[in-house]
Amino acid sequence: MSGLRHVTSINDLDNAEIEQVFALADKYLKELGETMERTERTRAGANLTTQRIAKSGRMGTGSILATLFYEPSTRTRLSFESAMLRLGGRTITSADPATSSAAKGESLADTVRVVSSYADAIVIRHPRDGAAKLAAQYASIPVINGGDGAHEHPTQTLCDLFTLRRHNKKLKNLSVAVSGDLRGSRTIHSFVYALARFGAAIRLMPGGKGMELPAHVDWRLRNEFKCVPLPKAKYAEDDAVDALYVTAERPHQLSLIADASSNYKLKKAVDAVYVTRFQKERWSEGARDYMKVDSKFLQNSRYKNTSVMHPLPRVGELDIALDHDTRAAYFQQAAYGVPIRMALIAEVLGLEKNFALAQFKTGFRHGDYELYERPPGDSGIRCRNPNCIVHDPYEGPYAANKFLYVPAEAPRLRCYYCETDIVDFLIAHRRRGHYDSKLSRRRPVGDFRDVVFFADEEAAETAGFSKGQPRRAAGK
Amino acid sequence: MSGLRHVTSINDLDNAEIEQVFALADKYLKELGETMERTERTRAGANLTTQRIAKSGRMGTGSILATLFYEPSTRTRLSFESAMLRLGGRTITSADPATSSAAKGESLADTVRVVSSYADAIVIRHPRDGAAKLAAQYASIPVINGGDGAHEHPTQTLCDLFTLRRHNKKLKNLSVAVSGDLRGSRTIHSFVYALARFGAAIRLMPGGKGMELPAHVDWRLRNEFKCVPLPKAKYAEDDAVDALYVTAERPHQLSLIADASSNYKLKKAVDAVYVTRFQKERWSEGARDYMKVDSKFLQNSRYKNTSVMHPLPRVGELDIALDHDTRAAYFQQAAYGVPIRMALIAEVLGLEKNFALAQFKTGFRHGDYELYERPPGDSGIRCRNPNCIVHDPYEGPYAANKFLYVPAEAPRLRCYYCETDIVDFLIAHRRRGHYDSKLSRRRPVGDFRDVVFFADEEAAETAGFSKGQPRRAAGK
Amino acid sequence: MSGLRHVTSINDLDNAEIEQVFALADKYLKELGETMERTERTRAGANLTTQRIAKSGRMGTGSILATLFYEPSTRTRLSFESAMLRLGGRTITSADPATSSAAKGESLADTVRVVSSYADAIVIRHPRDGAAKLAAQYASIPVINGGDGAHEHPTQTLCDLFTLRRHNKKLKNLSVAVSGDLRGSRTIHSFVYALARFGAAIRLMPGGKGMELPAHVDWRLRNEFKCVPLPKAKYAEDDAVDALYVTAERPHQLSLIADASSNYKLKKAVDAVYVTRFQKERWSEGARDYMKVDSKFLQNSRYKNTSVMHPLPRVGELDIALDHDTRAAYFQQAAYGVPIRMALIAEVLGLEKNFALAQFKTGFRHGDYELYERPPGDSGIRCRNPNCIVHDPYEGPYAANKFLYVPAEAPRLRCYYCETDIVDFLIAHRRRGHYDSKLSRRRPVGDFRDVVFFADEEAAETAGFSKGQPRRAAGK
Repeated sequence: MSGLRHVTSINDLDNAEIEQVFALADKYLKELGETMERTERTRAGANLTTQRIAKSGRMGTGSILATLFYEPSTRTRLSFESAMLRLGGRTITSADPATSSAAKGESLADTVRVVSSYADAIVIRHPRDGAAKLAAQYASIPVINGGDGAHEHPTQTLCDLFTLRRHNKKLKNLSVAVSGDLRGSRTIHSFVYALARFGAAIRLMPGGKGMELPAHVDWRLRNEFKCVPLPKAKYAEDDAVDALYVTAERPHQLSLIADASSNYKLKKAVDAVYVTRFQKERWSEGARDYMKVDSKFLQNSRYKNTSVMHPLPRVGELDIALDHDTRAAYFQQAAYGVPIRMALIAEVLGLEKNFALAQFKTGFRHGDYELYERPPGDSGIRCRNPNCIVHDPYEGPYAANKFLYVPAEAPRLRCYYCETDIVDFLIAHRRRGHYDSKLSRRRPVGDFRDVVFFADEEAAETAGFSKGQPRRAAGK
Repeated sequence: MSGLRHVTSINDLDNAEIEQVFALADKYLKELGETMERTERTRAGANLTTQRIAKSGRMGTGSILATLFYEPSTRTRLSFESAMLRLGGRTITSADPATSSAAKGESLADTVRVVSSYADAIVIRHPRDGAAKLAAQYASIPVINGGDGAHEHPTQTLCDLFTLRRHNKKLKNLSVAVSGDLRGSRTIHSFVYALARFGAAIRLMPGGKGMELPAHVDWRLRNEFKCVPLPKAKYAEDDAVDALYVTAERPHQLSLIADASSNYKLKKAVDAVYVTRFQKERWSEGARDYMKVDSKFLQNSRYKNTSVMHPLPRVGELDIALDHDTRAAYFQQAAYGVPIRMALIAEVLGLEKNFALAQFKTGFRHGDYELYERPPGDSGIRCRNPNCIVHDPYEGPYAANKFLYVPAEAPRLRCYYCETDIVDFLIAHRRRGHYDSKLSRRRPVGDFRDVVFFADEEAAETAGFSKGQPRRAAGK
Repeated sequence: MSGLRHVTSINDLDNAEIEQVFALADKYLKELGETMERTERTRAGANLTTQRIAKSGRMGTGSILATLFYEPSTRTRLSFESAMLRLGGRTITSADPATSSAAKGESLADTVRVVSSYADAIVIRHPRDGAAKLAAQYASIPVINGGDGAHEHPTQTLCDLFTLRRHNKKLKNLSVAVSGDLRGSRTIHSFVYALARFGAAIRLMPGGKGMELPAHVDWRLRNEFKCVPLPKAKYAEDDAVDALYVTAERPHQLSLIADASSNYKLKKAVDAVYVTRFQKERWSEGARDYMKVDSKFLQNSRYKNTSVMHPLPRVGELDIALDHDTRAAYFQQAAYGVPIRMALIAEVLGLEKNFALAQFKTGFRHGDYELYERPPGDSGIRCRNPNCIVHDPYEGPYAANKFLYVPAEAPRLRCYYCETDIVDFLIAHRRRGHYDSKLSRRRPVGDFRDVVFFADEEAAETAGFSKGQPRRAAGK
């Protein structure tokens, strides 16, 4: 019991754990008043909630949740705070970067180390991709990712999945259309991984040009989450769909589907349409001709019984006129934010006897990939995502040069923080003093302590390595 | 018990309910320590309060109040939060527009819908007139107006009335001078309605040129709140007074006073002077020669036993030297903010068995006036107050084109949100396809579903109506 | 029991009281989990804390702490809030000047008067020197200084001393190097007074040119805190040390040390190195060649067992590489912020039976120096520190012209608020109508109600006084 548990990515939780969070959320939802519909959230309801919670004698009493928000938010922060208070706990908040120590130039790494002695868990939101993993590296209490740059937003995904599960009475083998700014929306990135893990058919509908899924997310879907793209002919009737992935439920079915994808029987009905706004804060210019989901969009029979979902806020891409449509699920989805976050907080803090996540020394589930780590000032390869936390002037010195080595036909270096992959790199061998030609990248690397990865030949040469020639006493 | 209760205007509460809030505030005030004077607010006192409150076992435990402040505030927000905490409840806060979802372009309407699932009641402050009514329209939990533009500030008025009542041992038939920025101060607008309803003589003392009461507030005082202006001769000795209204306690006295106003016996002593600052945020330029209340102002014998009141903050219009004058009531008035807000919150949440406001399906007391409503994009007449919430680019699509039809010799259309009146409009009849000449405005309108109001002939013609000519199948 | 207790300076607490705060902090620290080290702050630990605190049935329940922060902060504010919550109390917060009533031009003096009726204690942070004392003058509840301009930061000093005491098993006769921006750092100012009071040898190491201790702080150390400077020869081996003070434990030893300072036996080992960042917000231009404490700095044998301390945030002056050095004490120091602030809050609120500070009518311990006070508009001398709260346009009218008269060979006028001394002034006698020549300043002044202090002869003459000539009915 000397471990911790961070939730920086939806992939920090396995499927069984996600189901466990949902079971606890079901319990809390019942206590909060099953239906939080407009006409029923009355004074009587509020009192009932109060009494139920008072009676349940929450173990959360005395625990403190710190919410550190370095980017604007109302929904996520308030729902976390509400969740902690409903659990009987307390909150401390730093919600405005301009009034915090960050204005004095303090690093996130130092801040979370200090806040670890003020609180029992931290929720962090940050404009940089990978900030949550950096925070988790330095915190000595559980860190929950409340959204980090364009990387992930795992608790939103838990709400999304929970909504799908409650509306469809199941979570597996659903057909979900994911639309909008697939590139800039962290919400989407967490969501598609989760959909794939629960065997969904995923219809990708970019909201405009260049808004496709980032290449590294797409690659992971195909190579790590067992998604198989169907041929266009399978969904020719739907122009808006750019790609359609189906997922093998069990590994042995994978090749089966792949081989037979042209014979795959695609369910016509779409169980949910997930709409997202244009993430203007992650683009240098505005969107033109961004998609709009309205009653016209939904008139196709495949959407007859769909759930229209949206992580909110919306800014035009989702017609207000749909609010009274029975297919509108987005306010319900938002309302689930409280029981879901109550459940997750309770599990990371160990507040409920029968619902606890496994704990690990490093705070993370040990992954399958080997870790490559070099000190911050190292001349080796660096993450190429300019918005990664490792490139933040304040955080850089705290962020080691860390990558996961993803073995594949063309192996990849995945940034430990933002999870963006590098496919184009050189391997240098410290003992032998030479670097491999690009063609040799595929072979096993051996002990990572003897290896340095470089961006190109020039960098390797500057660091004292030579091309394919063994040499003793090589440089740094 | 399937209703709700919003407090967006002082007129959402009837006189009996206001008295009920005061009775509960009296009770809380006793618990908090009757006199909150400087020398007595000691450690001993704080402990006593703590113990009393702990002993009373508040029902508020577990309830959450959300404070959504889109405009600067310390006093109002902190006093609401203190009140909720003193009740044993909890708070969640969004106090900086720049760090909230509003910065991403989210509408207030969507925000309150979502926050309705996070909290049990909402307090809102907003720079736009009528924002509180829009919030109440979309919230599924009680909304309390913490100040909306230049519209109203009903909880400040409750503190003001409570101060008058405690200082004068009664609330009825007082003589109150209301001074300063009568146009821009929402506090004043709520306050003069309440004064009239409790039968006060109201001395209006604008702080400078153009700072008279807005025309629609003045009209309501005379026509809806039974205020009768006295002839100038009655208060010729007081240059600063611009108008003086007396109020009939009972309807049948109204004409009596009106007829006999020149014989009305005006009490010389002024029970309270209510001072307000220049509301620079609601004016395009600064104030010149703004009034100042100081010991010189107060040396007239009519102010001998007056209570000097101010909603604070003050910025020069109220002399600091008065702080030690026994007539200074303003810090006491501010201190009443906590018990008053405790009482109001307790009543809307139903926390106290014997103190509960009646609840209504729409959250509002049903008014006497008929409601006219057209969809947002309608070509009919729109509110003419440029600061009304209906003209906010984000809120517009959520704000229906809603007016109350106020029957009068010259009927008025009152904006449902900001309560500004339009006196100059045309009535078009959809079935008949024509619009009435202006002269015909006085006649009863009939079923509002068959009617469209227009700003002018051009708008009516553009929409396909013709002047006084019946026509079938008329346009929109 | 009709008093109050403010903590605006470390000198508001006597040594016995500081020890008492530490004894209570020891108790709380035990409850919070003795060691708050990374590997031990686990879920199990969090629960234990929760249960211990729940079991202890805190008296803080229901008490409210208001945190008013007019300057950026994360650490101090969050640790105060965490402390209050751990005590079972609640908090209300105003952390952004731009969203508070200050944006409407409200004075601090009015704000604290009003907040006194919302809360049970106030923590204030403000960019102006002396703001905490002004707040204390107007508040009717205890005020704790959370940092005011370059004046003081007494609760940081309590954490610092507590760290020294726990690391060295004692607080007396330590040898401490104080380095960095000695001029701009309020933390340093509070800290050196406390070090002197507990008999430390103080090694002053300015971080750059012009960063020496302010003259008035240095004068107080020598003249009021019994510090004796050692001759440079005593510490010639340490170039970085600009001055070295040793302190007499008991008054009678003072002359002993002074006489024998050249024979004083200086302990070689330095028990702690206190590092501070460049306070860029208090300087008009950036720092060049600011010091850096790193492993190279620490390699001298005198630092072999030193504790490296830093109030954080750090911005480069403290090498990140030291974080894993066993001498690094700064994160531990930050962690002590919670139990220390719990103890101080509990003592000012009287929450613990056996731990209570003495209370006084004015909220302050009565000092030894006589108070001279003139009304705000007075033509007499004014504080010469341009950042003093008395020169704030909003606060000026509330800040009386108050000085303490410090008798000495060359007497000093010490600003009551910011504690900066004036050494160059004239004494005018109201009854006699003349002012003394500068040479006469040394003689006793008599009743301060008959005296006016002036900055120079011109000011005295303008106010109607003449040089050394008795005259009746003198001016203002």
